[in-house]
Amino acid sequence: MATIKQVALEAGVSKSTVSRYISQNGYISEEASQKIKKAIEKLNYSPNVLAQSLKTKKNQLVGLLLPDISNPFFPRLARGAEEYLKEKGFRVMLGNIGNQETVEEEYVNVLLQSNAAGIITTHDFTPKYPDITIPIVVVDRVDQKTKYGVFSDNKLGGQLAAQTIIEAGSKSILLIKGPLDNAENINQRFEASYAYLKKRQNHLIICESKTFDFEQIQQEAKENIRKHPYIDSIIAPSDIHAIAYIHELLSLGKNIPDDVQIIGYDDILMSQFIYPSLSTIHQSSYSMGQKAAELVYKIAMQQPVEEERIKLPVYYVNRETIRRKHE
Amino acid sequence: MATIKQVALEAGVSKSTVSRYISQNGYISEEASQKIKKAIEKLNYSPNVLAQSLKTKKNQLVGLLLPDISNPFFPRLARGAEEYLKEKGFRVMLGNIGNQETVEEEYVNVLLQSNAAGIITTHDFTPKYPDITIPIVVVDRVDQKTKYGVFSDNKLGGQLAAQTIIEAGSKSILLIKGPLDNAENINQRFEASYAYLKKRQNHLIICESKTFDFEQIQQEAKENIRKHPYIDSIIAPSDIHAIAYIHELLSLGKNIPDDVQIIGYDDILMSQFIYPSLSTIHQSSYSMGQKAAELVYKIAMQQPVEEERIKLPVYYVNRETIRRKHE
Repeated sequence: MATIKQVALEAGVSKSTVSRYISQNGYISEEASQKIKKAIEKLNYSPNVLAQSLKTKKNQLVGLLLPDISNPFFPRLARGAEEYLKEKGFRVMLGNIGNQETVEEEYVNVLLQSNAAGIITTHDFTPKYPDITIPIVVVDRVDQKTKYGVFSDNKLGGQLAAQTIIEAGSKSILLIKGPLDNAENINQRFEASYAYLKKRQNHLIICESKTFDFEQIQQEAKENIRKHPYIDSIIAPSDIHAIAYIHELLSLGKNIPDDVQIIGYDDILMSQFIYPSLSTIHQSSYSMGQKAAELVYKIAMQQPVEEERIKLPVYYVNRETIRRKHE
Repeated sequence: MATIKQVALEAGVSKSTVSRYISQNGYISEEASQKIKKAIEKLNYSPNVLAQSLKTKKNQLVGLLLPDISNPFFPRLARGAEEYLKEKGFRVMLGNIGNQETVEEEYVNVLLQSNAAGIITTHDFTPKYPDITIPIVVVDRVDQKTKYGVFSDNKLGGQLAAQTIIEAGSKSILLIKGPLDNAENINQRFEASYAYLKKRQNHLIICESKTFDFEQIQQEAKENIRKHPYIDSIIAPSDIHAIAYIHELLSLGKNIPDDVQIIGYDDILMSQFIYPSLSTIHQSSYSMGQKAAELVYKIAMQQPVEEERIKLPVYYVNRETIRRKHE
């Protein structure tokens, strides 16, 4: 089966022109019409089926490009998107990108060739594909140039984490910056924590994690705790990071939260089951996926979009890893 | 860009005939040669690039079709496969299938159209696609008809779980059969546990879980514990199941393992971090992915394959949820 892209190439016009021709929706020159008609005949393209699918969008693919499915934040985001889109008759194709641009490119090409209805991605690749016509919605790692995006209130989250630690009482804080220093979300949280702390705290140690890989974080935790044995509070950039530090602290015989208190970020399912259960900043990965799916759906179906950039709330979840000063 | 499939359709021959024509490898009739030549010219197909990629297989996709990425067993399997294939210059496209045949079909079609080098899947779909020419390797849920497969020693695993529970001492056992009653792996484990128990245990309750979804398992756990409050041992079909039951038991004020002991299956990362840490049967999802990738690679590269069905070892991991009778 020929694709709409091949018809466009053969006819020497753009894909959106072919699309307008097929759906008989919008202006198109007589010359272009003739060329497209010929190309369709030559390639034995079946416009009726496609015209139908352009109208109903049923059974079309939506791509979901994620950086790391072994981080439990993302499977839950995927589920939110999948459940919404399945309901609407779409199918989801998942890509595990792993921060590699070549893999991302491969997935984007396969999705475009498969006539996907839209793409949800954690990495805004739209500057690299200026001609893309399907909706691209960025989740979680939205930057200032992103047009369509769904993200958490990272600034509030970062500030809440710092405030929680300060209010529980602390003498020496390790503030861990998350990996991916170009990611706006990670930077915003870090900057908000830092801004809050530097006004209130004399002894502050800052380090940067290079990874979301659990075993590599364990190595970082070992080194940082060895280098700074006197810290009594840790602000982790994710629950995965917090859990690795807890593991290391417990294996050194430290008491949590009496010797060292620690706060995570994300509120993944695991955080309530570990011991001690993790105090953390909750952000809803499920809603993030769901809202992004809704945005892709509305744009693809040409329905009105009230908000192009959706900010989701965050809140503090009090469990067992933060000291309770006034109890 | 035209695909090999379109050339085959246009020429009225099979895809593998076109493939032989392009790679100049194997017999092909003069008549077919002429037809393919014409089709390639007409569709402006670029055989040189493809002939190259057929030889080197570099930059080709391998599809990895998984049933549920929110079950931590599978992201680790994916990583094992991805790391092996990346090393060899392949790219991995991941599909989250969710036990739905329509989604599986969509992925398989997209992969075939994208000229994938092979597919790793947990569901053996080969009977549905008799004409498929690329290597298909089944992981984990290998059945008797599967040609290429990588799986754990499920029989030994099921027996070890039952033996561990019996040796620790138990009066009344809840044996939970896993979901997916057509999956050979789940059945084998269950049958092996059952065979071991029925010779040794008077009081045995059997129930079947319908899901791997954590919240739904919690519902099942609530009901089963309410119906059978006197059980003192649980054999769970996965760590996810065990963790949901532990959660429910602790919330009822039961002591683990004194009141109720429990054994999981899989040894996911989370199992060592929960409290109490989970005694379980270890199977290596990472090795499973890695071995499956190696098998796909060898078949695709026409290298000799020593074992078409690879059985991986399992072992018992002693942590805190099993009673220690003789201490």
